[in-house]
Amino acid sequence: MRSASEKIRTILAENIRTYRRSKNLSQEELAEKCGLHRTYVGSVERCERNVTLSTLELLASALEISVPELLSNKECSKTEKHGRVNEEIFSQ
Amino acid sequence: MRSASEKIRTILAENIRTYRRSKNLSQEELAEKCGLHRTYVGSVERCERNVTLSTLELLASALEISVPELLSNKECSKTEKHGRVNEEIFSQ
Repeated sequence: MRSASEKIRTILAENIRTYRRSKNLSQEELAEKCGLHRTYVGSVERCERNVTLSTLELLASALEISVPELLSNKECSKTEKHGRVNEEIFSQ
Repeated sequence: MRSASEKIRTILAENIRTYRRSKNLSQEELAEKCGLHRTYVGSVERCERNVTLSTLELLASALEISVPELLSNKECSKTEKHGRVNEEIFSQ
């Protein structure tokens, strides 16, 4: 099976780490909130996993953010432009 | 393994369908662009799959959007009425 690209795995890992720390949670505490194993959360933060949508949901929920937020590249200014394009598509 | 929630699978399915149609692509054509099987794309659009991050990336890339955009709930009011939306989806 094709693995997710290094880029998106890195964005995911950085976001998990950033939001987890902002909530003063250890990897173990986050894992417990998600019902996942501590070593699994660690491997996601090391960009080693091709996670499923259900795992993304568990992590986002435990971090009290949305799944799109968990996968967003915060440094990317393109998102604003895309948002407008999307509104056009969905308003049709 | 826990499956992704009905809600996020429905958002994903609706977004794939909306962006696919905006590009005048059939399920088969989208599948070909992604290197996935037509029946697999069909099953994602029927909310049946717990897709992986790599598959989300393939789909987003083929639709020329970002992964967060592919998972964003564009029409909150429509999505709240899941039952009716699903009927519309499956009757098309």
